[in-house]
Amino acid sequence: MLGKYRALWLNDNEFLEVIDQTKLPFEYTTKVLKTTDEVVTAIKDMTVRGAGVIGSVAAFGIYTACLDAEITYEALHVEAKKIRESRPTAVNLMWAVDKMMELLKDSKELVNDAKKYAIELNDAEAMESQKIASYGADIIENILKEKNKTKINILTHCNAGWLAVIDEGTALAPIYEAQKRGIDVHVWVDETRPRNQGASLTAWELTQSGVSHTIIADNTGGHLMQVGEVDMVIVGADRVSANGDVANKIGTYLKALAANDNDVPFYVAIPASTFDFDIRDGVKEIPIELRSEDEVKYMRGVDSDGVVREVLITPKDSPAINYGFDVTPARLVTGLITNKGVCEADFDKIKEKFNKK
Amino acid sequence: MLGKYRALWLNDNEFLEVIDQTKLPFEYTTKVLKTTDEVVTAIKDMTVRGAGVIGSVAAFGIYTACLDAEITYEALHVEAKKIRESRPTAVNLMWAVDKMMELLKDSKELVNDAKKYAIELNDAEAMESQKIASYGADIIENILKEKNKTKINILTHCNAGWLAVIDEGTALAPIYEAQKRGIDVHVWVDETRPRNQGASLTAWELTQSGVSHTIIADNTGGHLMQVGEVDMVIVGADRVSANGDVANKIGTYLKALAANDNDVPFYVAIPASTFDFDIRDGVKEIPIELRSEDEVKYMRGVDSDGVVREVLITPKDSPAINYGFDVTPARLVTGLITNKGVCEADFDKIKEKFNKK
Repeated sequence: MLGKYRALWLNDNEFLEVIDQTKLPFEYTTKVLKTTDEVVTAIKDMTVRGAGVIGSVAAFGIYTACLDAEITYEALHVEAKKIRESRPTAVNLMWAVDKMMELLKDSKELVNDAKKYAIELNDAEAMESQKIASYGADIIENILKEKNKTKINILTHCNAGWLAVIDEGTALAPIYEAQKRGIDVHVWVDETRPRNQGASLTAWELTQSGVSHTIIADNTGGHLMQVGEVDMVIVGADRVSANGDVANKIGTYLKALAANDNDVPFYVAIPASTFDFDIRDGVKEIPIELRSEDEVKYMRGVDSDGVVREVLITPKDSPAINYGFDVTPARLVTGLITNKGVCEADFDKIKEKFNKK
Repeated sequence: MLGKYRALWLNDNEFLEVIDQTKLPFEYTTKVLKTTDEVVTAIKDMTVRGAGVIGSVAAFGIYTACLDAEITYEALHVEAKKIRESRPTAVNLMWAVDKMMELLKDSKELVNDAKKYAIELNDAEAMESQKIASYGADIIENILKEKNKTKINILTHCNAGWLAVIDEGTALAPIYEAQKRGIDVHVWVDETRPRNQGASLTAWELTQSGVSHTIIADNTGGHLMQVGEVDMVIVGADRVSANGDVANKIGTYLKALAANDNDVPFYVAIPASTFDFDIRDGVKEIPIELRSEDEVKYMRGVDSDGVVREVLITPKDSPAINYGFDVTPARLVTGLITNKGVCEADFDKIKEKFNKK
């Protein structure tokens, strides 16, 4: 079932190993995470990122914590709390940690059981990604049919591919599936400042996977939609509230506005675990992470000698502010592509499909 | 009448001297332009940029050409042509060159007359900037009064300050004027990818002028507007069509959409010469410049040793596309702040105020 590419795996020594995504696209390197602290650091410094992959790493993080021979289930709670708090907006991470802790409640063999459960959770997630791929590719086929076109231009923001979610991502999964179905796909890749996940990760990932793409400054999508060069938008999400508001990488809201203004379908691809049913009004209630101003002020790249360098791109003393996410109101979302099918971004529809309680 | 800062001036030896804007914000250096060829090069390599400043430099470029003791009015035409062709899309530049040549037609003392006319043209432009400043600051005062607030947060995109237009710019002129009136002003500075005119030029300019500001990724403005942190937007424009559609730096349209979605007033500050009455539908008719993909793929900054370096920020083989401008439909524009007063972005209102023919 597994695709060719993964962002994390258990290595031959049974340790969690991950692609160091902070080094992409200039260097392909991996990191082995042997302790809870290393797992927490890897999440915090974005060695690993992406809602799904963070959840996957968190599940294996509990397994990693269990590698401490002295640890008891009680003591494991302390480690679980550290992992839970490594990224406050990541609902998947919390879900994965809580699920692991629940599964391990009566375990007599913490290491073996944690490994088994973490692998199971990851395989389940990979299956979800496949479902999203399939439902999303059906939408792509329908759009082409309606427009009587043979080539589709899809705009995406940030990275929600296999570097973000096991096994083929969320937003990029339908694109990979469309390619498999023989559809001519071209992707507009939003650079995604300030961390450039689009220009670095998505462009790199699409290159690896042989998908035609063009990098654009985040400012460009509106113009492309005005001139008819975008057939649909697909993005991922960190959290979706009960009413269908979508928290995703900063700038997503601006693309949703432009899509709405130009009648371009705007889809959000998510596993059902992304819903946060405790939040009724995402725009008002979802907390937005404030990150370091240095992510705005400094830029990493490779110089003409091939050396990776970080350069200051602003006046040294000018302050910057760096909100990591924004919330796109449900009214701007055409549909949510989930592992359980496509759903309108609407309180009652979401409740009916996902939250029967 | 002149402000403290200018992008160009006549130095003590009566030569044209300009700030080298390609070195900002890392180095403040100037260039003395002693020949037509040096003027042409300065425009071509963007030592000077900004619609107004290019026009100002062009006027002084004709004066510079006259410094050649041998030159006749006939021979001056050859030099004028070189300057005219240094930036084919710059309407102001052509206007300034043609105006200078017309004024010099019957001149008996080319050097003295050219100097006088160039200074007069620049002073006229500075006067326009002052008018824009004054009308814009009145709007700022009204917004504060309506909201019963004492501090205003203004978002701007790209650079339309004194580095772009003599004497205090267009979009930034009302901000400088508000500061002079004792208003507590804070500016959200859009980084403005891909050329970073906001993060480099606007932030530098505001620092020099002591205006409180914060640099943000272009993706951030929508969120700031959602949470009430933006009281108004002011941008400049390269061209405004007869119906009030606004061609400005790529990404302006996205901010206008966000402003509209959050009831934030969206103003465009321009000298009246920015109107193009030949264009009736700006969105459909204004041609959009396609620039080098390298502006997206490479980023210039200063490393930890203080060396200015250019680094590649994308996978080497991923293509990029780089549209320089977009067009904001008139329906999203609250008002046009001009040297002749504030005007609605509406065909009839614009015609009545500016184009009586």
